[in-house]
Amino acid sequence: MLSKVKVKYIQSLGQKKVREQEGLFVAEGPKLVAELIGDNKAMVVEVFALPEWIAANGAVAAAVATTVVNAIELEKLSQLKTPNEVLALVKQFAVSGEILTNGKVVLALDGIQDPGNMGTLIRIADWFGVEQLVCSMDSADIYNAKVVQATMGSIGRVAVHYINLVDWIVKTPKLVLYAAALNGRDVTTMPKLAEGVIIIGNESKGISDDVLALVHNRITIPKRGNAESLNAGVAAGVILSHLV
Amino acid sequence: MLSKVKVKYIQSLGQKKVREQEGLFVAEGPKLVAELIGDNKAMVVEVFALPEWIAANGAVAAAVATTVVNAIELEKLSQLKTPNEVLALVKQFAVSGEILTNGKVVLALDGIQDPGNMGTLIRIADWFGVEQLVCSMDSADIYNAKVVQATMGSIGRVAVHYINLVDWIVKTPKLVLYAAALNGRDVTTMPKLAEGVIIIGNESKGISDDVLALVHNRITIPKRGNAESLNAGVAAGVILSHLV
Repeated sequence: MLSKVKVKYIQSLGQKKVREQEGLFVAEGPKLVAELIGDNKAMVVEVFALPEWIAANGAVAAAVATTVVNAIELEKLSQLKTPNEVLALVKQFAVSGEILTNGKVVLALDGIQDPGNMGTLIRIADWFGVEQLVCSMDSADIYNAKVVQATMGSIGRVAVHYINLVDWIVKTPKLVLYAAALNGRDVTTMPKLAEGVIIIGNESKGISDDVLALVHNRITIPKRGNAESLNAGVAAGVILSHLV
Repeated sequence: MLSKVKVKYIQSLGQKKVREQEGLFVAEGPKLVAELIGDNKAMVVEVFALPEWIAANGAVAAAVATTVVNAIELEKLSQLKTPNEVLALVKQFAVSGEILTNGKVVLALDGIQDPGNMGTLIRIADWFGVEQLVCSMDSADIYNAKVVQATMGSIGRVAVHYINLVDWIVKTPKLVLYAAALNGRDVTTMPKLAEGVIIIGNESKGISDDVLALVHNRITIPKRGNAESLNAGVAAGVILSHLV
């Protein structure tokens, strides 16, 4: 049985401020929760699950603190439209202050706002073996429920840094920067990158002028038809598939 | 002033069945409506707009039948969470029965369900100059409000056919088929395609067994990290960027 206080506490994790104070986030759904427990069960503080989930995942349920809930309780806890069997309280991932760039390709996001796009970008980084994501301070919070969902389990496998991009670039003159922008070099004919920072801009405004002014190289996905632009996730996927 | 009957009629276009009967769909937002009118104003049956939109788009508003509405009326008409200045009633695009494959790259979608993905796929096709999309009968309806929105104006520039994929493949032996699937040829090392059908599967189940059994070539986006899969739109974008 869930106490009202507990329900309120978990609901309050829908707010970024509370998530930061508590160092926690909420992950939902059998696949995501299983993956988080499988990757590192010490990160999973508590699980709230329907009896069906517990019956099907006995060993997993025994490995972490698990509370049985009914469908009505799960719905109260859930931040999703359609709650899905299980919900976990998970510790936020520790990210060291240092961004490693020697011999690494890093993805930088300048003002990505849409949680679905942010989650997809984390999933794409994980697919292409990009271990670090650097986000401007105004980017969507990776612990937002919709972002967590859209990462499809990749959230624990990519280190995400939130920083002031301009400061970072200015203080780190050795960075080799590539901006996804118009009128750049055709990405499909470029050689693979040994290292570099690939910058993807905001969904409608692109990369901010301050950042763009500091970038050495512009890269472009050639357009053959008439669409005005590509979705940020699609653009990142295409660029990484050519450059890593 | 909008009549109740008109409001109900436009609301009823939220249903696929009604859209098909009427041969119409609803498009929303200044950018999309402007693009549809610009592409072919004869397709736009009627526009419902706030005074602000009319003030800013006088010439456009004069070119089509335009009804002034207030914010409350627009909200009643809208299928979006956040109505945006203008809404248009648009004729569904005529798609000839014939799918042209000689010298063409065609994108085929097998069971894409998510409206956002479907819209993004249309936008990607339009970006890469793919003029025809062939969708299995169980794919999302392109005239769904969320699909229309996600196409970002590309909806009128790609011909979308809904057919039984298995029947089409069986009846058209000359098709050269490429399935985006696991354990296929590395798409990043393949030469450009002069013609062919690239098949993208359902978000969770992939390409159906019936279709996959008929396909000559499997193509794969190499994975360097640990994500389980890529989003359908991202996969299509990556594949098209390498093959067209």
